[in-house]
Amino acid sequence: MSGVVVAVVDPQTPGNVGTIARAMKNFGFADLKLVDPPELDPDGEAYGFAGHAREDVLPNHDVVSFESLVTDFYTVGFTAVTNHDGRKHVRYPFKTPVELHDHLSGLDADVALVFGREDTGLSNEEIVRIDEVCSIPASPEYPVLNLGQAATVALYELRDLTFDESHHPDNRHERADERALEGLYDQFDSFLNAIDHPEEKHAKTGRLIRRLLGRAHPTGREVTTLRGLFRQAEGRIERARNDD
Amino acid sequence: MSGVVVAVVDPQTPGNVGTIARAMKNFGFADLKLVDPPELDPDGEAYGFAGHAREDVLPNHDVVSFESLVTDFYTVGFTAVTNHDGRKHVRYPFKTPVELHDHLSGLDADVALVFGREDTGLSNEEIVRIDEVCSIPASPEYPVLNLGQAATVALYELRDLTFDESHHPDNRHERADERALEGLYDQFDSFLNAIDHPEEKHAKTGRLIRRLLGRAHPTGREVTTLRGLFRQAEGRIERARNDD
Repeated sequence: MSGVVVAVVDPQTPGNVGTIARAMKNFGFADLKLVDPPELDPDGEAYGFAGHAREDVLPNHDVVSFESLVTDFYTVGFTAVTNHDGRKHVRYPFKTPVELHDHLSGLDADVALVFGREDTGLSNEEIVRIDEVCSIPASPEYPVLNLGQAATVALYELRDLTFDESHHPDNRHERADERALEGLYDQFDSFLNAIDHPEEKHAKTGRLIRRLLGRAHPTGREVTTLRGLFRQAEGRIERARNDD
Repeated sequence: MSGVVVAVVDPQTPGNVGTIARAMKNFGFADLKLVDPPELDPDGEAYGFAGHAREDVLPNHDVVSFESLVTDFYTVGFTAVTNHDGRKHVRYPFKTPVELHDHLSGLDADVALVFGREDTGLSNEEIVRIDEVCSIPASPEYPVLNLGQAATVALYELRDLTFDESHHPDNRHERADERALEGLYDQFDSFLNAIDHPEEKHAKTGRLIRRLLGRAHPTGREVTTLRGLFRQAEGRIERARNDD
Protein backbone atom coordinates (compact mmCIF):
# COMPACT_ATOMS: atom_id res chain seq x y z
CA MET A 1 0.00 0.00 0.00
CA SER A 2 1.55 3.29 -1.07
CA GLY A 3 -0.49 5.57 1.14
CA VAL A 4 -3.99 6.30 2.33
CA VAL A 5 -5.30 9.84 2.63
CA VAL A 6 -8.59 10.95 4.15
CA ALA A 7 -10.62 13.47 2.17
CA VAL A 8 -13.70 15.40 3.26
CA VAL A 9 -15.82 17.12 0.61
CA ASP A 10 -17.52 20.35 1.60
CA PRO A 11 -17.78 19.78 5.37
CA GLN A 12 -20.07 22.33 6.98
CA THR A 13 -19.07 22.19 10.65
CA PRO A 14 -15.51 22.64 11.87
CA GLY A 15 -16.23 20.28 14.79
CA ASN A 16 -16.60 17.34 12.42
CA VAL A 17 -13.29 18.15 10.76
CA GLY A 18 -11.68 18.08 14.21
CA THR A 19 -13.36 14.79 15.07
CA ILE A 20 -12.10 13.23 11.85
CA ALA A 21 -8.58 14.54 12.47
CA ARG A 22 -8.63 12.95 15.92
CA ALA A 23 -9.85 9.60 14.58
CA MET A 24 -7.09 9.77 11.96
CA LYS A 25 -4.43 10.19 14.62
CA ASN A 26 -6.02 7.48 16.81
CA PHE A 27 -5.89 5.01 13.93
CA GLY A 28 -2.59 6.01 12.36
CA PHE A 29 -3.63 8.18 9.39
CA ALA A 30 -1.77 11.45 8.80
CA ASP A 31 -2.81 13.01 5.50
CA LEU A 32 -6.04 15.04 5.55
CA LYS A 33 -7.39 16.62 2.34
CA LEU A 34 -10.28 19.08 2.49
CA VAL A 35 -12.47 20.19 -0.43
CA ASP A 36 -14.19 23.53 0.24
CA PRO A 37 -13.69 23.44 4.01
CA PRO A 38 -15.20 25.94 6.42
CA GLU A 39 -12.84 28.32 8.18
CA LEU A 40 -10.84 26.42 10.80
CA ASP A 41 -10.27 28.89 13.59
CA PRO A 42 -7.37 27.82 15.86
CA ASP A 43 -9.57 28.74 18.82
CA GLY A 44 -12.68 27.07 17.40
CA GLU A 45 -14.32 23.65 17.42
CA ALA A 46 -12.12 21.98 14.79
CA TYR A 47 -9.07 22.39 17.01
CA GLY A 48 -11.16 21.84 20.14
CA PHE A 49 -12.33 18.41 18.92
CA ALA A 50 -9.04 17.28 17.44
CA GLY A 51 -7.27 16.19 20.65
CA HIS A 52 -3.58 15.69 19.93
CA ALA A 53 -4.29 15.84 16.20
CA ARG A 54 -4.38 19.61 16.74
CA GLU A 55 -0.59 19.41 16.69
CA ASP A 56 -0.13 17.72 13.30
CA VAL A 57 -2.97 16.12 11.32
CA LEU A 58 -5.26 19.12 11.49
CA PRO A 59 -2.82 22.01 10.87
CA ASN A 60 -1.06 19.97 8.16
CA HIS A 61 -4.25 19.47 6.10
CA ASP A 62 -4.28 20.39 2.39
CA VAL A 63 -7.12 22.16 0.66
CA VAL A 64 -7.66 20.42 -2.69
CA SER A 65 -10.22 20.20 -5.50
CA PHE A 66 -12.55 17.23 -5.94
CA GLU A 67 -11.07 16.97 -9.44
CA SER A 68 -7.59 16.40 -8.03
CA LEU A 69 -8.83 13.61 -5.77
CA VAL A 70 -10.32 11.79 -8.76
CA THR A 71 -7.19 12.31 -10.81
CA ASP A 72 -4.55 11.49 -8.23
CA PHE A 73 -6.09 8.68 -6.18
CA TYR A 74 -7.96 5.43 -6.20
CA THR A 75 -11.03 6.94 -4.55
CA VAL A 76 -13.40 5.19 -2.15
CA GLY A 77 -16.63 7.07 -1.40
CA PHE A 78 -18.56 6.48 1.83
CA THR A 79 -22.34 6.59 1.85
CA ALA A 80 -25.20 5.41 4.06
CA VAL A 81 -27.51 5.36 1.06
CA THR A 82 -26.81 2.55 -1.40
CA ASN A 83 -28.64 1.17 -4.39
CA HIS A 84 -30.28 -2.16 -3.70
CA ASP A 85 -29.37 -4.21 -6.74
CA GLY A 86 -27.54 -4.23 -10.05
CA ARG A 87 -30.19 -2.18 -11.88
CA LYS A 88 -28.48 1.02 -10.75
CA HIS A 89 -24.72 1.31 -10.54
CA VAL A 90 -24.23 4.72 -8.97
CA ARG A 91 -24.06 3.22 -5.47
CA TYR A 92 -23.93 -0.50 -6.31
CA PRO A 93 -22.12 -2.84 -5.89
CA PHE A 94 -20.61 -1.61 -2.63
CA LYS A 95 -18.38 -2.93 0.13
CA THR A 96 -18.58 -2.84 3.92
CA PRO A 97 -15.54 -1.41 5.76
CA VAL A 98 -14.38 -4.95 6.60
CA GLU A 99 -14.55 -5.94 2.93
CA LEU A 100 -12.82 -2.70 1.96
CA HIS A 101 -10.03 -3.49 4.41
CA ASP A 102 -9.46 -6.87 2.78
CA HIS A 103 -9.71 -5.32 -0.68
CA LEU A 104 -7.06 -2.68 0.11
CA SER A 105 -4.66 -4.96 2.00
CA GLY A 106 -1.63 -5.67 -0.10
CA LEU A 107 -2.74 -3.27 -2.83
CA ASP A 108 -0.06 -0.94 -4.16
CA ALA A 109 -1.93 2.30 -4.83
CA ASP A 110 -2.55 5.78 -3.54
CA VAL A 111 -5.96 5.60 -1.93
CA ALA A 112 -8.28 8.44 -0.88
CA LEU A 113 -11.10 7.64 1.54
CA VAL A 114 -13.70 10.25 0.60
CA PHE A 115 -16.43 11.46 2.97
CA GLY A 116 -19.23 13.84 1.99
CA ARG A 117 -21.04 16.75 3.58
CA GLU A 118 -22.99 16.35 6.84
CA ASP A 119 -26.50 16.70 5.51
CA THR A 120 -26.45 15.15 2.04
CA GLY A 121 -23.22 13.18 1.87
CA LEU A 122 -21.61 12.78 -1.54
CA SER A 123 -23.81 13.81 -4.46
CA ASN A 124 -24.60 11.41 -7.30
CA GLU A 125 -22.48 13.61 -9.58
CA GLU A 126 -19.54 13.16 -7.21
CA ILE A 127 -20.04 9.48 -6.50
CA VAL A 128 -20.16 8.44 -10.18
CA ARG A 129 -16.64 9.79 -10.52
CA ILE A 130 -15.44 7.72 -7.56
CA ASP A 131 -13.90 4.27 -8.03
CA GLU A 132 -15.46 2.26 -5.24
CA VAL A 133 -18.39 2.66 -2.84
CA CYS A 134 -18.29 1.73 0.87
CA SER A 135 -21.20 1.70 3.32
CA ILE A 136 -21.22 1.04 7.07
CA PRO A 137 -23.78 -1.57 8.17
CA ALA A 138 -26.25 0.01 10.57
CA SER A 139 -29.77 -0.30 11.91
CA PRO A 140 -32.51 -0.34 9.25
CA GLU A 141 -34.40 2.03 11.54
CA TYR A 142 -31.73 4.73 11.41
CA PRO A 143 -28.73 3.91 9.23
CA VAL A 144 -27.43 7.46 8.74
CA LEU A 145 -24.34 8.07 10.84
CA ASN A 146 -23.02 11.49 11.71
CA LEU A 147 -20.05 12.42 9.47
CA GLY A 148 -17.45 12.31 12.26
CA GLN A 149 -18.78 9.02 13.59
CA ALA A 150 -18.86 7.41 10.14
CA ALA A 151 -15.23 8.40 9.55
CA THR A 152 -14.29 7.09 13.00
CA VAL A 153 -15.78 3.65 12.29
CA ALA A 154 -14.21 3.51 8.82
CA LEU A 155 -10.74 4.46 10.05
CA TYR A 156 -11.03 2.03 12.96
CA GLU A 157 -11.72 -0.82 10.52
CA LEU A 158 -8.86 0.23 8.24
CA ARG A 159 -6.35 0.85 11.04
CA ASP A 160 -3.99 -1.97 10.27
CA LEU A 161 -3.32 -0.52 6.84
CA THR A 162 -1.33 2.11 8.75
CA PHE A 163 0.25 0.39 11.75
CA ASP A 164 1.41 -3.15 12.42
CA GLU A 165 0.72 -3.19 16.12
CA SER A 166 -1.76 -1.28 18.23
CA HIS A 167 -0.99 0.14 21.65
CA HIS A 168 -2.13 -3.10 23.24
CA PRO A 169 0.41 -5.47 24.78
CA ASP A 170 1.21 -8.56 22.68
CA ASN A 171 -0.87 -10.71 24.99
CA ARG A 172 -4.20 -9.36 26.10
CA HIS A 173 -4.63 -12.39 28.31
CA GLU A 174 -1.89 -14.53 29.86
CA ARG A 175 -3.31 -17.94 30.68
CA ALA A 176 -1.70 -19.79 33.56
CA ASP A 177 0.26 -22.85 32.48
CA GLU A 178 -1.49 -26.18 32.69
CA ARG A 179 0.68 -27.57 35.47
CA ALA A 180 -0.19 -24.63 37.70
CA LEU A 181 -3.89 -25.25 36.99
CA GLU A 182 -3.58 -28.96 37.70
CA GLY A 183 -1.86 -28.05 40.95
CA LEU A 184 -4.79 -25.83 41.81
CA TYR A 185 -7.29 -28.60 41.09
CA ASP A 186 -5.29 -30.97 43.35
CA GLN A 187 -5.24 -28.33 46.03
CA PHE A 188 -8.98 -27.88 45.64
CA ASP A 189 -9.54 -31.62 46.05
CA SER A 190 -7.47 -31.57 49.20
CA PHE A 191 -9.55 -28.61 50.39
CA LEU A 192 -12.75 -30.61 49.79
CA ASN A 193 -11.34 -33.32 52.05
CA ALA A 194 -10.50 -30.76 54.70
CA ILE A 195 -14.02 -29.36 54.76
CA ASP A 196 -15.49 -32.88 54.87
CA HIS A 197 -17.20 -32.51 51.53
CA PRO A 198 -19.06 -35.83 50.97
CA GLU A 199 -16.71 -38.28 49.28
CA GLU A 200 -19.29 -39.25 46.61
CA LYS A 201 -19.60 -35.62 45.52
CA HIS A 202 -15.86 -34.95 45.10
CA ALA A 203 -15.69 -35.88 41.43
CA LYS A 204 -18.75 -33.87 40.47
CA THR A 205 -17.64 -30.77 42.40
CA GLY A 206 -14.17 -31.13 40.92
CA ARG A 207 -15.63 -31.15 37.41
CA LEU A 208 -17.71 -28.08 38.17
CA ILE A 209 -14.67 -26.12 39.32
CA ARG A 210 -12.64 -27.33 36.32
CA ARG A 211 -15.36 -26.17 33.90
CA LEU A 212 -15.77 -22.83 35.67
CA LEU A 213 -12.07 -22.01 35.79
CA GLY A 214 -11.44 -23.59 32.41
CA ARG A 215 -13.61 -21.11 30.58
CA ALA A 216 -12.35 -18.17 32.61
CA HIS A 217 -8.75 -18.88 31.49
CA PRO A 218 -7.17 -17.89 34.84
CA THR A 219 -3.89 -16.00 34.80
CA GLY A 220 -0.86 -17.37 36.64
CA ARG A 221 -1.38 -14.91 39.42
CA GLU A 222 -5.04 -15.84 39.81
CA VAL A 223 -4.10 -19.52 40.06
CA THR A 224 -1.37 -18.84 42.61
CA THR A 225 -3.73 -16.71 44.68
CA LEU A 226 -6.58 -19.25 44.63
CA ARG A 227 -4.26 -22.12 45.41
CA GLY A 228 -2.81 -20.17 48.32
CA LEU A 229 -6.29 -19.42 49.66
CA PHE A 230 -7.37 -23.06 49.57
CA ARG A 231 -4.11 -24.14 51.18
CA GLN A 232 -4.54 -21.50 53.86
CA ALA A 233 -8.13 -22.60 54.54
CA GLU A 234 -6.97 -26.20 54.82
CA GLY A 235 -4.23 -25.18 57.24
CA ARG A 236 -6.66 -23.27 59.40
CA ILE A 237 -9.06 -26.21 59.56
CA GLU A 238 -6.24 -28.58 60.54
CA ARG A 239 -4.97 -26.24 63.23
CA ALA A 240 -8.50 -25.77 64.57
CA ARG A 241 -8.85 -29.56 64.77
CA ASN A 242 -5.55 -29.90 66.58
CA ASP A 243 -6.69 -27.25 69.06
CA ASP A 244 -9.75 -29.32 69.89
CA MET B 1 -28.93 -12.28 25.23
CA SER B 2 -31.44 -10.67 27.58
CA GLY B 3 -30.55 -7.05 26.91
CA VAL B 4 -27.67 -4.66 26.50
CA VAL B 5 -27.75 -1.19 28.01
CA VAL B 6 -25.23 1.59 27.49
CA ALA B 7 -24.07 3.44 30.61
CA VAL B 8 -22.00 6.60 30.84
CA VAL B 9 -20.41 7.52 34.16
CA ASP B 10 -20.08 11.21 34.96
CA PRO B 11 -20.00 12.61 31.41
CA GLN B 12 -18.92 16.24 31.40
CA THR B 13 -20.15 17.49 28.03
CA PRO B 14 -23.75 17.14 26.82
CA GLY B 15 -22.49 16.86 23.22
CA ASN B 16 -20.87 13.51 23.95
CA VAL B 17 -24.07 12.19 25.49
CA GLY B 18 -25.88 13.16 22.28
CA THR B 19 -23.19 11.53 20.13
CA ILE B 20 -23.51 8.30 22.12
CA ALA B 21 -27.33 8.38 21.87
CA ARG B 22 -27.02 8.73 18.09
CA ALA B 23 -24.55 5.84 17.81
CA MET B 24 -26.92 3.75 19.94
CA LYS B 25 -29.79 4.38 17.55
CA ASN B 26 -27.56 3.79 14.51
CA PHE B 27 -26.51 0.41 15.86
CA GLY B 28 -29.79 -0.70 17.42
CA PHE B 29 -29.33 0.02 21.13
CA ALA B 30 -32.17 1.73 23.01
CA ASP B 31 -31.46 1.82 26.72
CA LEU B 32 -29.20 4.65 27.95
CA LYS B 33 -28.22 4.90 31.63
CA LEU B 34 -26.42 8.00 32.91
CA VAL B 35 -24.53 8.31 36.19
CA ASP B 36 -24.18 11.95 37.33
CA PRO B 37 -24.96 13.47 33.92
CA PRO B 38 -24.68 17.17 33.14
CA GLU B 39 -27.89 19.06 32.47
CA LEU B 40 -29.31 18.02 29.09
CA ASP B 41 -30.99 21.12 27.73
CA PRO B 42 -33.51 20.26 24.96
CA ASP B 43 -32.06 23.18 22.99
CA GLY B 44 -28.45 22.30 23.77
CA GLU B 45 -25.71 20.11 22.30
CA ALA B 46 -26.92 16.75 23.62
CA TYR B 47 -30.09 17.03 21.57
CA GLY B 48 -28.25 18.80 18.76
CA PHE B 49 -25.80 15.89 18.34
CA ALA B 50 -28.33 13.09 18.82
CA GLY B 51 -29.88 13.08 15.33
CA HIS B 52 -33.06 11.00 15.37
CA ALA B 53 -32.11 9.65 18.80
CA ARG B 54 -33.41 12.95 20.09
CA GLU B 55 -36.86 11.41 19.69
CA ASP B 56 -36.37 8.31 21.83
CA VAL B 57 -32.98 7.11 23.08
CA LEU B 58 -31.94 10.44 24.55
CA PRO B 59 -35.21 11.61 26.22
CA ASN B 60 -35.84 8.05 27.50
CA HIS B 61 -32.51 7.85 29.37
CA ASP B 62 -32.46 6.87 33.04
CA VAL B 63 -30.29 8.50 35.66
CA VAL B 64 -28.87 5.74 37.84
CA SER B 65 -26.15 5.17 40.45
CA PHE B 66 -22.89 3.39 39.67
CA GLU B 67 -23.84 1.03 42.47
CA SER B 68 -27.01 -0.04 40.67
CA LEU B 69 -25.06 -0.80 37.48
CA VAL B 70 -22.75 -3.11 39.40
CA THR B 71 -25.66 -4.78 41.16
CA ASP B 72 -28.06 -5.20 38.25
CA PHE B 73 -25.80 -5.95 35.29
CA TYR B 74 -22.90 -7.92 33.97
CA THR B 75 -20.73 -4.84 33.51
CA VAL B 76 -18.12 -4.28 30.81
CA GLY B 77 -15.86 -1.25 31.33
CA PHE B 78 -14.16 0.47 28.39
CA THR B 79 -10.69 1.93 28.77
CA ALA B 80 -7.83 3.05 26.55
CA VAL B 81 -5.38 2.42 29.37
CA THR B 82 -4.79 -1.24 30.17
CA ASN B 83 -2.33 -3.10 32.34
CA HIS B 84 0.32 -4.89 30.35
CA ASP B 85 0.48 -8.31 31.98
CA GLY B 86 -0.90 -10.50 34.72
CA ARG B 87 1.00 -8.75 37.52
CA LYS B 88 -1.84 -6.23 37.86
CA HIS B 89 -5.46 -7.26 37.46
CA VAL B 90 -7.29 -3.94 37.61
CA ARG B 91 -7.21 -3.58 33.81
CA TYR B 92 -5.94 -7.04 32.80
CA PRO B 93 -6.82 -9.39 31.18
CA PHE B 94 -8.94 -7.42 28.73
CA LYS B 95 -10.78 -7.97 25.48
CA THR B 96 -10.98 -6.06 22.21
CA PRO B 97 -14.49 -5.13 20.96
CA VAL B 98 -14.37 -8.03 18.46
CA GLU B 99 -13.52 -10.47 21.25
CA LEU B 100 -16.20 -8.94 23.45
CA HIS B 101 -18.73 -9.43 20.66
CA ASP B 102 -17.90 -13.11 20.46
CA HIS B 103 -17.90 -13.40 24.24
CA LEU B 104 -21.39 -11.86 24.55
CA SER B 105 -22.96 -13.66 21.59
CA GLY B 106 -25.35 -16.31 22.82
CA LEU B 107 -24.93 -15.26 26.46
CA ASP B 108 -28.14 -14.95 28.46
CA ALA B 109 -27.49 -11.97 30.74
CA ASP B 110 -28.29 -8.33 31.28
CA VAL B 111 -25.20 -6.51 30.10
CA ALA B 112 -24.16 -2.89 30.73
CA LEU B 113 -21.48 -1.39 28.49
CA VAL B 114 -19.90 1.21 30.77
CA PHE B 115 -18.03 4.27 29.51
CA GLY B 116 -16.19 6.74 31.75
CA ARG B 117 -15.72 10.48 31.87
CA GLU B 118 -14.05 12.38 29.00
CA ASP B 119 -10.79 13.33 30.67
CA THR B 120 -9.96 10.45 32.98
CA GLY B 121 -12.25 7.60 31.92
CA LEU B 122 -13.28 5.09 34.57
CA SER B 123 -11.35 5.38 37.84
CA ASN B 124 -9.49 2.38 39.27
CA GLU B 125 -12.03 2.33 42.11
CA GLU B 126 -14.81 2.00 39.54
CA ILE B 127 -13.11 -0.45 37.26
CA VAL B 128 -12.27 -2.95 40.01
CA ARG B 129 -16.02 -3.30 40.61
CA ILE B 130 -16.65 -4.03 36.93
CA ASP B 131 -16.79 -7.60 35.60
CA GLU B 132 -14.87 -7.35 32.33
CA VAL B 133 -12.52 -4.84 30.70
CA CYS B 134 -12.61 -3.91 27.00
CA SER B 135 -10.13 -1.74 25.10
CA ILE B 136 -10.21 -0.50 21.51
CA PRO B 137 -7.00 -1.17 19.57
CA ALA B 138 -5.49 2.12 18.40
CA SER B 139 -2.25 3.77 17.40
CA PRO B 140 0.54 3.46 19.98
CA GLU B 141 1.25 7.11 19.25
CA TYR B 142 -2.19 8.29 20.37
CA PRO B 143 -4.48 5.53 21.62
CA VAL B 144 -6.91 7.71 23.59
CA LEU B 145 -10.20 8.07 21.75
CA ASN B 146 -12.73 10.76 22.45
CA LEU B 147 -15.61 9.39 24.58
CA GLY B 148 -18.24 9.67 21.85
CA GLN B 149 -15.94 8.12 19.25
CA ALA B 150 -14.99 5.23 21.54
CA ALA B 151 -18.64 4.45 22.18
CA THR B 152 -19.37 4.66 18.45
CA VAL B 153 -16.68 2.09 17.62
CA ALA B 154 -17.77 -0.21 20.44
CA LEU B 155 -21.46 -0.11 19.49
CA TYR B 156 -20.57 -0.61 15.83
CA GLU B 157 -18.68 -3.81 16.70
CA LEU B 158 -21.49 -5.06 18.93
CA ARG B 159 -24.31 -4.15 16.52
CA ASP B 160 -25.41 -7.64 15.67
CA LEU B 161 -26.24 -8.32 19.31
CA THR B 162 -29.21 -6.00 18.66
CA PHE B 163 -30.33 -6.58 15.09
CA ASP B 164 -30.19 -9.52 12.74
CA GLU B 165 -29.88 -7.58 9.53
CA SER B 166 -28.47 -4.16 8.80
CA HIS B 167 -30.02 -1.68 6.40
CA HIS B 168 -27.94 -3.15 3.59
CA PRO B 169 -29.61 -5.25 0.89
CA ASP B 170 -29.04 -9.01 1.25
CA ASN B 171 -26.56 -8.93 -1.59
CA ARG B 172 -24.07 -6.12 -1.63
CA HIS B 173 -22.79 -7.39 -4.91
CA GLU B 174 -24.73 -9.40 -7.53
CA ARG B 175 -22.27 -11.27 -9.71
CA ALA B 176 -23.37 -12.03 -13.26
CA ASP B 177 -23.99 -15.71 -13.88
CA GLU B 178 -21.20 -17.69 -15.46
CA ARG B 179 -23.00 -18.32 -18.75
CA ALA B 180 -23.44 -14.59 -19.27
CA LEU B 181 -19.73 -14.10 -18.63
CA GLU B 182 -18.75 -16.89 -21.00
CA GLY B 183 -20.99 -15.26 -23.59
CA LEU B 184 -19.14 -12.00 -23.06
CA TYR B 185 -15.77 -13.70 -23.50
CA ASP B 186 -17.00 -15.29 -26.76
CA GLN B 187 -18.25 -11.91 -27.92
CA PHE B 188 -14.89 -10.41 -27.03
CA ASP B 189 -13.08 -13.04 -29.06
CA SER B 190 -15.32 -12.27 -32.01
CA PHE B 191 -14.55 -8.57 -31.50
CA LEU B 192 -10.82 -9.36 -31.62
CA ASN B 193 -11.38 -11.00 -34.98
CA ALA B 194 -13.32 -8.00 -36.22
CA ILE B 195 -10.55 -5.57 -35.31
CA ASP B 196 -7.94 -7.86 -36.91
CA HIS B 197 -6.15 -8.49 -33.65
CA PRO B 198 -3.19 -10.76 -34.59
CA GLU B 199 -4.35 -14.39 -34.40
CA GLU B 200 -1.35 -15.47 -32.29
CA LYS B 201 -2.25 -12.93 -29.60
CA HIS B 202 -5.92 -13.91 -29.22
CA ALA B 203 -5.43 -16.43 -26.46
CA LYS B 204 -3.18 -14.16 -24.41
CA THR B 205 -5.49 -11.15 -24.75
CA GLY B 206 -8.47 -13.36 -23.90
CA ARG B 207 -6.75 -14.48 -20.71
CA LEU B 208 -5.98 -10.90 -19.78
CA ILE B 209 -9.61 -9.87 -20.13
CA ARG B 210 -10.77 -12.94 -18.23
CA ARG B 211 -8.43 -12.16 -15.35
CA LEU B 212 -9.41 -8.48 -15.29
CA LEU B 213 -13.14 -9.07 -15.35
CA GLY B 214 -12.87 -12.13 -13.15
CA ARG B 215 -11.53 -10.20 -10.23
CA ALA B 216 -13.97 -7.32 -10.74
CA HIS B 217 -16.96 -9.70 -10.40
CA PRO B 218 -19.09 -7.91 -13.02
CA THR B 219 -22.82 -7.59 -12.39
CA GLY B 220 -25.31 -8.94 -14.93
CA ARG B 221 -25.98 -5.47 -16.19
CA GLU B 222 -22.28 -4.74 -16.63
CA VAL B 223 -21.85 -7.94 -18.64
CA THR B 224 -24.87 -7.18 -20.81
CA THR B 225 -23.63 -3.65 -21.45
CA LEU B 226 -20.08 -4.72 -22.31
CA ARG B 227 -21.30 -7.53 -24.55
CA GLY B 228 -23.60 -5.12 -26.33
CA LEU B 229 -20.77 -2.63 -26.86
CA PHE B 230 -18.45 -5.23 -28.37
CA ARG B 231 -21.28 -6.54 -30.60
CA GLN B 232 -22.06 -2.97 -31.67
CA ALA B 233 -18.41 -2.30 -32.47
CA GLU B 234 -18.22 -5.50 -34.49
CA GLY B 235 -21.38 -4.51 -36.39
CA ARG B 236 -19.99 -1.09 -37.18
CA ILE B 237 -16.75 -2.55 -38.47
CA GLU B 238 -18.62 -5.00 -40.69
CA ARG B 239 -20.88 -2.31 -42.08
CA ALA B 240 -17.88 -0.04 -42.73
CA ARG B 241 -16.25 -2.90 -44.66
CA ASN B 242 -19.37 -3.56 -46.69
CA ASP B 243 -19.47 0.16 -47.54
CA ASP B 244 -15.96 -0.04 -48.94
